[in-house]
Amino acid sequence: VKIVVFEAQGEEGLGVMLDDLRFVALRDVDSDLPENLIQILELENGLDRLRDAVGGQPPVRKLSDVVLKPFLRRPNAMWALALNFKTHIKETGLTTSLQFPHIFLRTSASYVGAGEAILAPDPAVARAFDYEGELAVVIGKTGRYISVAEALNYVAGYSCLNEGSVREYQIHNRQFGLGKNFEASGSYGPWLMTPDEFGDPAAHTVTTRVNGITRQKAPLDDMLFSVAQVVSYLSQGYQLRVGDLIAMGTPGALLPAEDDVLGRDMSQQYGPFKIPGLVHMRPSDVVEVEISGLGVLKNLVEASSAKQIA
Amino acid sequence: VKIVVFEAQGEEGLGVMLDDLRFVALRDVDSDLPENLIQILELENGLDRLRDAVGGQPPVRKLSDVVLKPFLRRPNAMWALALNFKTHIKETGLTTSLQFPHIFLRTSASYVGAGEAILAPDPAVARAFDYEGELAVVIGKTGRYISVAEALNYVAGYSCLNEGSVREYQIHNRQFGLGKNFEASGSYGPWLMTPDEFGDPAAHTVTTRVNGITRQKAPLDDMLFSVAQVVSYLSQGYQLRVGDLIAMGTPGALLPAEDDVLGRDMSQQYGPFKIPGLVHMRPSDVVEVEISGLGVLKNLVEASSAKQIA
Repeated sequence: VKIVVFEAQGEEGLGVMLDDLRFVALRDVDSDLPENLIQILELENGLDRLRDAVGGQPPVRKLSDVVLKPFLRRPNAMWALALNFKTHIKETGLTTSLQFPHIFLRTSASYVGAGEAILAPDPAVARAFDYEGELAVVIGKTGRYISVAEALNYVAGYSCLNEGSVREYQIHNRQFGLGKNFEASGSYGPWLMTPDEFGDPAAHTVTTRVNGITRQKAPLDDMLFSVAQVVSYLSQGYQLRVGDLIAMGTPGALLPAEDDVLGRDMSQQYGPFKIPGLVHMRPSDVVEVEISGLGVLKNLVEASSAKQIA
Repeated sequence: VKIVVFEAQGEEGLGVMLDDLRFVALRDVDSDLPENLIQILELENGLDRLRDAVGGQPPVRKLSDVVLKPFLRRPNAMWALALNFKTHIKETGLTTSLQFPHIFLRTSASYVGAGEAILAPDPAVARAFDYEGELAVVIGKTGRYISVAEALNYVAGYSCLNEGSVREYQIHNRQFGLGKNFEASGSYGPWLMTPDEFGDPAAHTVTTRVNGITRQKAPLDDMLFSVAQVVSYLSQGYQLRVGDLIAMGTPGALLPAEDDVLGRDMSQQYGPFKIPGLVHMRPSDVVEVEISGLGVLKNLVEASSAKQIA
């Protein structure tokens, strides 16, 4: 099942997709389920109850009539992985442990949904604003000390994610800190797809396009640490909670084509690394993260509010 | 004003301290204010309305009859600073930028309140579990692009904080990740003290005691980056939100006294640094973080659940 959170007439609601264009809104059918995905996941057989509630011959809505929002409302933790693809490790020249995943955190406010704009920093603040196409994992069951073999049983589903990063701030100090947490700098969506539909995460591919040009494309089995390994690792110290999100890391840039002037012009790169085929996100760009078999997360980039120190 | 969140008969409530031992519970007086500190801070003149609501001749409760809980319920961001005291930079031998604060994030689940136990990891998982006595800052007003001169106007108040850290996990990779986010590994409290009572943060002192022995003691003007500088820095990329917390970093260890056997025995240290006067937190320890003019945050350390891989 594919679950969305949408906004229509100023109100947020939960929906279940019928295909990639149409959905049934929970509020349009007779149900006492909460309009909150984390709360539904916390219910016994919550997803089955949701599926039942929207079954039958309910009214059908079109995605094009609503705005898709982030489907998680401030979970306890939004984990993210640095340097989890060999191609990205190589292009940055950075080091990472081969024994332990490279973990940091983002806040809810750093992500928007599939129907909202990503905000590019005012150029007076930062210019090296980079996309990172990734697989997002959402936890569906509380757990501690989870083995790698059991780990995927704790996953509620998957989504596409753009882990927008502000490179100048990321290298201000050794911890990424603010550079990974600019306001509305990333996105996830369009929906949560449950594991019964998605299957083995390692069997899929992540692709990132900017204005229609493919900038990243990699099989998800190229990850240094698998979804199961990361879930197991986190549970050694932390009790995973329903609604926690894990951004699994991004692959390296594709080499630009012969006639790709922008992708070949590294003089327009303002970050710490000059990488052929890397372009920064700028206002009016359209950035898509596609995960095969799941869907496409598409965001317009808009300018953040202008810097004006009070 | 000093504000607490307490639990009594299984229910959480908000209270205003009369002195360091007695308080008035919002639920005991006639008021339509929410029992939620962030919601009160978001109201126009919320703190004044809270003060008015509990004024007069209301029923008085004793702190000793209740359990003090974390007074923030999952704010958007719990920021923290690494290496913000010269003495701590020196003792670790680590490097940090002198130009930009060293920022990372913790989750709500990593903190307990003043009446709850901090959880020490199972020794089979980790042993270098360290206290870090710190000043906590709570944001009271939404803001972006805040100047250093204006920054303290965005502060709702201050508290004591123990930024419990699991050193073995902190050095698993370059980002601190899980090492700063073990379940219930830190604490803040006992209350939020508003700036009108606390005054200039730089005029205070932070002290950490373990089982009555003073392990850290430093003036808060010894910080590399001041509260105002950090608030201003974060607001360059992030819209500060009501209820956001900032842990301002910890000072170095005090040299152990001649007869301090435990403090002098560095063979019992399991972390990356061997530091005279550093002791790890272990079950049954009592750890206190005191900030002068504010109060004492006192927590018992208990053993976390034992490691058992499912």
